[in-house]
Amino acid sequence: MSAAEKQAKRQRFEGVFGQIVDDLLDHMKSQNMPEAALDWYRRSLEYNTPGGKLNRGLSVVDTVDILLCFNDANERTRELSEKEYFEAALLGWCVELLQAYFLVADDMMDASITRRGHPCWYRVDGVGNIAINDAFMLEAAIYYLLKKHFRERPYYVHLLELFHDITLQTEYGQLIDLITAPEDHVDLSKFSLDKHHLIVVYKTAYYSFYLPVALAMRMVGVEDESAYKRALDILLPLGEYFQVQDDYLDCYGTPEQIGKIGTDILDNKCSWNINVALANATPEQRKILDENYGQKNSECEQRVKEVFNAPNVDIKGRFERYEAESYDRIHSLIREMPEGPGVKRAVFVAFFDKVYKRSK
Amino acid sequence: MSAAEKQAKRQRFEGVFGQIVDDLLDHMKSQNMPEAALDWYRRSLEYNTPGGKLNRGLSVVDTVDILLCFNDANERTRELSEKEYFEAALLGWCVELLQAYFLVADDMMDASITRRGHPCWYRVDGVGNIAINDAFMLEAAIYYLLKKHFRERPYYVHLLELFHDITLQTEYGQLIDLITAPEDHVDLSKFSLDKHHLIVVYKTAYYSFYLPVALAMRMVGVEDESAYKRALDILLPLGEYFQVQDDYLDCYGTPEQIGKIGTDILDNKCSWNINVALANATPEQRKILDENYGQKNSECEQRVKEVFNAPNVDIKGRFERYEAESYDRIHSLIREMPEGPGVKRAVFVAFFDKVYKRSK
Repeated sequence: MSAAEKQAKRQRFEGVFGQIVDDLLDHMKSQNMPEAALDWYRRSLEYNTPGGKLNRGLSVVDTVDILLCFNDANERTRELSEKEYFEAALLGWCVELLQAYFLVADDMMDASITRRGHPCWYRVDGVGNIAINDAFMLEAAIYYLLKKHFRERPYYVHLLELFHDITLQTEYGQLIDLITAPEDHVDLSKFSLDKHHLIVVYKTAYYSFYLPVALAMRMVGVEDESAYKRALDILLPLGEYFQVQDDYLDCYGTPEQIGKIGTDILDNKCSWNINVALANATPEQRKILDENYGQKNSECEQRVKEVFNAPNVDIKGRFERYEAESYDRIHSLIREMPEGPGVKRAVFVAFFDKVYKRSK
Repeated sequence: MSAAEKQAKRQRFEGVFGQIVDDLLDHMKSQNMPEAALDWYRRSLEYNTPGGKLNRGLSVVDTVDILLCFNDANERTRELSEKEYFEAALLGWCVELLQAYFLVADDMMDASITRRGHPCWYRVDGVGNIAINDAFMLEAAIYYLLKKHFRERPYYVHLLELFHDITLQTEYGQLIDLITAPEDHVDLSKFSLDKHHLIVVYKTAYYSFYLPVALAMRMVGVEDESAYKRALDILLPLGEYFQVQDDYLDCYGTPEQIGKIGTDILDNKCSWNINVALANATPEQRKILDENYGQKNSECEQRVKEVFNAPNVDIKGRFERYEAESYDRIHSLIREMPEGPGVKRAVFVAFFDKVYKRSK
């Protein structure tokens, strides 16, 4: 797809957000809420929901499009109707609202300073801890929108359960992350690649990879539970690879490549890099990691990077091997997956290409 | 009901909480979460959910009991079965979980120090801002429990929607409260009795009064939407009276009566007292209120109280008249309410007696 096509696709999706805000404020108005409360909610919705890459939301639209508009030979047979497009985009925005709910709160829990190049919401003048209630209202928006637009559909309750189940799983992931790697107390003995796997799958992969596809499958009417299981079996490993790559690039990507300066080492993050280093370090190297990881100090960061680059640790080489191995493994998973009603390889290939494109 | 009977009733209800914690931890274990995460969730559930008066949760049980076990002459015809009791209590605990979700967050937003005689959860050693995710997980518990125990019932989706709708409404109430009466910035021009009415109905009455009854009505199979409307029309005014009484007692109740020392004046709360005072103050009294309300200083508090007690303001006298008027009004509402399937006056009389007993 050309850059212009991509841009147009994104703009069409963004166009739906205005209607979503209108829906939410109309309800608030119908409950006689004062003008100041409406203004506040609008500002929170607009500050926190769009503005990211929107990959998760766009994935719902893409998946519905592939499932409804392509034949088995992967040729387009039609376009989504206006109504189909709107409904898929609405579900996409619900995923973005879920993410906004998590991010507003995560930024408070991590004491972050900026998000997407702007101050974190809780750091905006006059907001502060009211951001907690704002996060709640971003989540509640999801259920209002689903009720308004989907309550007569036979799959309505499945949409609700998808959001409920995956919200809880994401919160599990956030909890393990918070108690394993608190920003202000370094204890590398709590880290492990197993812990990292759990955090990544629960905190990121379920809501970022599985949720968009599962929502799309529900919307097009897939009822076979085994189809959801097959989707999960591919999308969780894909999400895990995505996050490992993200962790890797935090340290080894250029600022241009990742759009920020990585701070995982300074912030005591339970990232793939540190867990691989811990698994391979000599006792001397381990000591250096214990003493320097998670310290807010660029000399300490440099010492950690030296261990990462030592020949026996070699994060770069290990990542390259991990990437090649995971590329092959997931590629095989997709190739060997039996197609069936509502399960098309093209859905997963689309994700696969997006995720592996970043570095390949 | 004797004190011993009340105590027994409460203990039976509390006995169900253990099973609820087990349900939630079993699920967490099934997802391979580490022991430390299970311990954390258990501690948060036990610290934040029981320990209050449990009136909201018990109301679900009481309402189911009245609807299923009493005849039209208000004579008991049977007892709830074990299964009926358990399911009603489970819904009751879901209301208590919803309240726990709100309170953990409200305490952070209000910078409160203690709750129910213990430090607020976020002030417990090692918790801090992780309490935000803990609040999220208290809410998510509701939907896990409803799915586990009610998903095959025809009214399952109604239970979900009740929680969704009322959660959003409560968050509206919390938002108006937060932007009307921020703890650290006094501006009495934002206050009004209308604002107070909105805050009280949305922040408290929906979830504390309507929700328990509506859940019970769904559980016993009431499908007539007008029955819910009739319940709402009585329970919101009752909830409003309850909160006005609470506001009044914060200033005029003895510490023994209310179990704490009231701090609404110091905390710039948008309470009934201040709104009535503002509506009746002379310009001179208004100036005193503007200069002294919401200041963390007992002399200022005393000056505000003097205005409250001035003959033209007379909060005490106005409350007594408000109470008598509201007693009669709600009593008439109940008396005139047409009974029908799933709508029994006894449900509302039970609430009425509880709420008006505190001072009458």
